[in-house]
Amino acid sequence: MTGGAGTPPDTALPGIADVEDAAATLRPHAVRTPLLESRRLNGRLGGRVLFKAEMLQRTGSFKFRGACTAIARLPEERRRRGVVAFSSGNHAQGVAAAARLFDVPAVIVMPRDAPRVKIDNTREYGAEVILYDPATEDRDAIGERVARERALSLIRPFDAFDVICGQGTVGLEIAEQAAALGLGIDTLLCPCGGGGLIGGIATALAARSPATRVFSVEPEHFDDTRRSLAAGEPVAVEPGHTSICDAIITPRPGQLTFRINRERLAGGLAVDDTQVMHAMRWAFAHLRAVVEPGGAVAIAALLADPETARGRTTAVVCSGGNVDADMFARCILAP
Amino acid sequence: MTGGAGTPPDTALPGIADVEDAAATLRPHAVRTPLLESRRLNGRLGGRVLFKAEMLQRTGSFKFRGACTAIARLPEERRRRGVVAFSSGNHAQGVAAAARLFDVPAVIVMPRDAPRVKIDNTREYGAEVILYDPATEDRDAIGERVARERALSLIRPFDAFDVICGQGTVGLEIAEQAAALGLGIDTLLCPCGGGGLIGGIATALAARSPATRVFSVEPEHFDDTRRSLAAGEPVAVEPGHTSICDAIITPRPGQLTFRINRERLAGGLAVDDTQVMHAMRWAFAHLRAVVEPGGAVAIAALLADPETARGRTTAVVCSGGNVDADMFARCILAP
Repeated sequence: MTGGAGTPPDTALPGIADVEDAAATLRPHAVRTPLLESRRLNGRLGGRVLFKAEMLQRTGSFKFRGACTAIARLPEERRRRGVVAFSSGNHAQGVAAAARLFDVPAVIVMPRDAPRVKIDNTREYGAEVILYDPATEDRDAIGERVARERALSLIRPFDAFDVICGQGTVGLEIAEQAAALGLGIDTLLCPCGGGGLIGGIATALAARSPATRVFSVEPEHFDDTRRSLAAGEPVAVEPGHTSICDAIITPRPGQLTFRINRERLAGGLAVDDTQVMHAMRWAFAHLRAVVEPGGAVAIAALLADPETARGRTTAVVCSGGNVDADMFARCILAP
Repeated sequence: MTGGAGTPPDTALPGIADVEDAAATLRPHAVRTPLLESRRLNGRLGGRVLFKAEMLQRTGSFKFRGACTAIARLPEERRRRGVVAFSSGNHAQGVAAAARLFDVPAVIVMPRDAPRVKIDNTREYGAEVILYDPATEDRDAIGERVARERALSLIRPFDAFDVICGQGTVGLEIAEQAAALGLGIDTLLCPCGGGGLIGGIATALAARSPATRVFSVEPEHFDDTRRSLAAGEPVAVEPGHTSICDAIITPRPGQLTFRINRERLAGGLAVDDTQVMHAMRWAFAHLRAVVEPGGAVAIAALLADPETARGRTTAVVCSGGNVDADMFARCILAP
């Protein structure tokens, strides 16, 4: 293959300067997403809960940040040839939109059963979409073959230095926005798939808000980061389970992301689909926001154990809002 | 009755200084709601469409601004006795939340058939709710009787100087936020019930963005402002119609609001329920936002005639997001 944004295991971990560089790259392109609050929730808890609204990010998820950073940092000549990515959908859209921004071709390898809205959006951003059968085909192999055959740069979804730096700008913004409110953040809850978003955020907060305890939140049965943190080494989940959280059902942590998260995180949490549906309904009614299942797991963890937020300031990352209408309706109508 | 925030017909129209005063009052309490954009819509139109996200306002609609301004401006002694309001729901919640902020009692007169979420929220904000049957009872009479009997100040939903000034802060923010993006606003589309929001916004823009053409958008059959603007005098709509836009199905313009709007607006538009449902579905998918039917009429007007936005900058006010889950599901699942 031609290379891509992959990262060998002995790479240095990203630091705050790397995240700041990404923030400078993203400034003209990414949305500085707002913090949303529910005054009623705050009142009930006697604390503040700050919801970072990445569903309001360009392409409807934080993934645009990492994709745009990685593509911007490719050497001009490689970038011009184009990029390839494999993704269940949000990274796909992020890479497709960022490639269009730089006016370079993008090929995206997506599972046939990805939410329709994610496949449609990726095509609308101008990318060529290659669908594969996740039951019988290996997306990594397809992605690497396409990269090799067409001399494209592979933009990995999470286990890549530049991608992690881009996602880390979410953490920079949260720290700045909380400080503007006169608040220090006691705890941060963040959805976790491969660990790129939370790894970047934890990197930013280690420098900008070192007292904040950062927890990953994963879907039940896909809690590889929680298990790996507990074991002290990367552990894969048991196969054979399903979840509505399509965006974050990764089987194991990334190499680089786990090295960061082992050092930076306070622990890991997991929530089940029923809790996720309740969280989506809560966000619909109280934040008037559309959060997709995988983007709502940190809300679910908060609502499952609100007492931990009592009298404190808690940041909750809502990581995306790309969800088919029928799934969303099912979630908000659930009893 | 004890008085209240009502306004005699010969009152001076509010000016920019009155709206600026309201902005100073609201600064510690109201959310400075963001402008949302869809890059794909912008790209398709070769222009910019700025969606002012008042569903992200405290209580889920712009109504908190006017209610908070009006209650803040009551003389201390009257304020302490408490307030009363009649409302289908969003003004109810705004008044209830603002009353709680000032720690004064609130009584809200609401129709029995208001969306459940609006009644529940109003009670949760601590107000006493009196339900009436809109088919057989007159809410104005009930509200004025309660005000008289309990010596409460009536906070009118739209036809009141202070309320209009509070709503006008939406316009101040839009002008400031657009200027920060380096944009002048060619056209603004705004939902219109009694005309308080658009009257306030038009007052702000007349001073801060005088080149902007401001259009009201109403539900079909409830287009009293459109008809009144065309007739040059207040005209009531024909009775006997229904609309899903519960928040803005007023039968006639206010006296003060019409005096403002006759002077300030460029014209009026109307949309039907099918167009509103499409707009709610579009906002769900492209803005990842929950907009209620009455809050989505300006989006509907834009989508019904997008060519008018080509190559221009258009501000579209999304005025609220309080909608029952079953209605929202019905709208986003509509073909």
